Amino acid sequence: MGPAFNCGVFFSEVSKITQDQKYMQMAVNLALLGKYDTWTNPLVGAVIVKNNQVIATGYHHKFGKEHAEINALSHLDQLSQAKGATIYVSLEPCSHYGKTPPCARKLVEVGIKRVVVGQLDPNPLVAGKGIQILKQAGIEITNLNCTQYINQTYNFFYNNQRPFITLKYAMSLDGKLNFQHGQRSILTGETVHDDSQRLRMDNQAILIGEHTLDVDDPLLTVRLKIMEFPPIKILLVNDVNQINMGLRIFSTAGSIWILSKTISKKKMPKNVRVFADDSWHVEQIIELMHDEGIQSLLVEGGSEVQARFMCSGIVDQIVSYVSGQVFGGTALPVAKGAGMNKPLKMNIQQVAQLGPDVKITARRN
Amino acid sequence: MGPAFNCGVFFSEVSKITQDQKYMQMAVNLALLGKYDTWTNPLVGAVIVKNNQVIATGYHHKFGKEHAEINALSHLDQLSQAKGATIYVSLEPCSHYGKTPPCARKLVEVGIKRVVVGQLDPNPLVAGKGIQILKQAGIEITNLNCTQYINQTYNFFYNNQRPFITLKYAMSLDGKLNFQHGQRSILTGETVHDDSQRLRMDNQAILIGEHTLDVDDPLLTVRLKIMEFPPIKILLVNDVNQINMGLRIFSTAGSIWILSKTISKKKMPKNVRVFADDSWHVEQIIELMHDEGIQSLLVEGGSEVQARFMCSGIVDQIVSYVSGQVFGGTALPVAKGAGMNKPLKMNIQQVAQLGPDVKITARRN
Repeated sequence: MGPAFNCGVFFSEVSKITQDQKYMQMAVNLALLGKYDTWTNPLVGAVIVKNNQVIATGYHHKFGKEHAEINALSHLDQLSQAKGATIYVSLEPCSHYGKTPPCARKLVEVGIKRVVVGQLDPNPLVAGKGIQILKQAGIEITNLNCTQYINQTYNFFYNNQRPFITLKYAMSLDGKLNFQHGQRSILTGETVHDDSQRLRMDNQAILIGEHTLDVDDPLLTVRLKIMEFPPIKILLVNDVNQINMGLRIFSTAGSIWILSKTISKKKMPKNVRVFADDSWHVEQIIELMHDEGIQSLLVEGGSEVQARFMCSGIVDQIVSYVSGQVFGGTALPVAKGAGMNKPLKMNIQQVAQLGPDVKITARRN
Repeated sequence: MGPAFNCGVFFSEVSKITQDQKYMQMAVNLALLGKYDTWTNPLVGAVIVKNNQVIATGYHHKFGKEHAEINALSHLDQLSQAKGATIYVSLEPCSHYGKTPPCARKLVEVGIKRVVVGQLDPNPLVAGKGIQILKQAGIEITNLNCTQYINQTYNFFYNNQRPFITLKYAMSLDGKLNFQHGQRSILTGETVHDDSQRLRMDNQAILIGEHTLDVDDPLLTVRLKIMEFPPIKILLVNDVNQINMGLRIFSTAGSIWILSKTISKKKMPKNVRVFADDSWHVEQIIELMHDEGIQSLLVEGGSEVQARFMCSGIVDQIVSYVSGQVFGGTALPVAKGAGMNKPLKMNIQQVAQLGPDVKITARRN
């Protein structure tokens, strides 16, 4: 992704780059330093400029830590330097008391003269209210409306009131998931493994069904990087009391949510939450995700769970890894069970050869 | 395909190109002019050189017409010019009386002094015998052994005593062939259509099963080019007497072969041949193709036929067109029915985006 391009800046047109775009690009680059550490918070960067000189920069380092604007202000030699300055923030300053006091008020307080934002905050707690506070204080506002791409799932979540759903699977060249029923097939190579690890890092929750839990005995962990906020592991099962607690997943750290049709009769480990409901239709799963503030969900199968999501029509992205192996007429297909009323039309966005395998990324039309 | 590369000639090393390689490249380029017209005959080009001057060129224009060497000789002002000349032929001159008298004898007769061949002819009727005739006549022989790539299936056929088998299918992103059983799905766009037409042109026969015949009512014709030798249409059915002779395929020109478990009780149109056998295992189909001299077979489905070929393990190439559509849990998979003892490992050789779709080409390990 070429960030420079996204703010309307082309490398061949460097001479035309406006000052505003240049500083916003700097803010974006700072924002990206927080990647994988801000959990459900957006990535945000800030640059404070006075007399055409950058006098401080900052970004949101980590979930629960100070916001980008406050971080930038903290880097000034003296807070009084902010008086009359312009601040470039890749996202509208917040207006609410959350884990930190509202940034908009702080900017007013320190005498910032002009605020250039990359986009409005879609979070209804903020949405325009940050700008309003600033405007009411007589601060000049410019919205460049160009930084949405650095917080795609954050924006999606608030614009659609639900998480961004990605289905991911590896399949044989003839569209099969497993060679033999009840036995896991290793379909793809190391490059795909690494890529699918990055896919996990980009999601706040990973969901699998009971059959995959039993057959694959997966860890669902991220092994490329130690993450302070790894994706929540969601297990969709019939009866929590039937689950084999000796499975490897229960020895991993990080949250595990079990969606069961029954209430747990036994005490669960501290990192395990059980949600019980009569039925876990896709719509209900997604509602729960929304209520829990989960902005992105990666569905890793198996074939019945994939079919249920496809059937629901609520699929935003599909990542399909295709192997050179052929599994034939009795192997388990990628999707099995729930049928659809009509085909789901996705747009193939990207195709890449990853070692001996192929990755196809498709998005909703 | 860069022909120059295949004869060991790199563009950056033009100065090092030997005369032999240069003239052989010219012969190859001439050979390719016959593409799609030589049917089961190989593509062959010839260049006659004397005193470092090209004095005549030729190629095999069409199945049943004169061979490249004879065609080149016919372009000399006088046949006596051939005396003492060198001829570059992309394939060993033939030694047998076929549709034309043996070229090797003709080259001896006209007094050719040196013969440079691109490869030996794998056809057992020739295989080394052409060279032998020339050698016995005291003609100097050089084999550059570099032109095999222009006649891949021809070489494959004689080296393996069977046709080169390609399975071709279009599938949804989740590995399905048809959305609804018994109803044809249009999965891919125009670019794939054109590409699959070229695939047909590259094959001498196309095979489909009974179910595909009924459901798709296909023409199996080549519509990009009027071909004098279009691929033979092979229909694999249970009972020839049950076939609906009103299907569109029976209104097309060109040979149709019906592989049936029964003998036909009615008179068939002139272009239709019926082969009856108790069972048509893949091995038997391939044996028939071999006996009939068919060097390349394109299997176009449906899912049961594909599964049978996969199961047999006799698959040399798979061309899979992948659409952005998702068909879900009740749709028909690419391969259904016959199972395999173990997965078939193919190498993905090429991945291309064709309009909105993806083409994956894999070859046998």
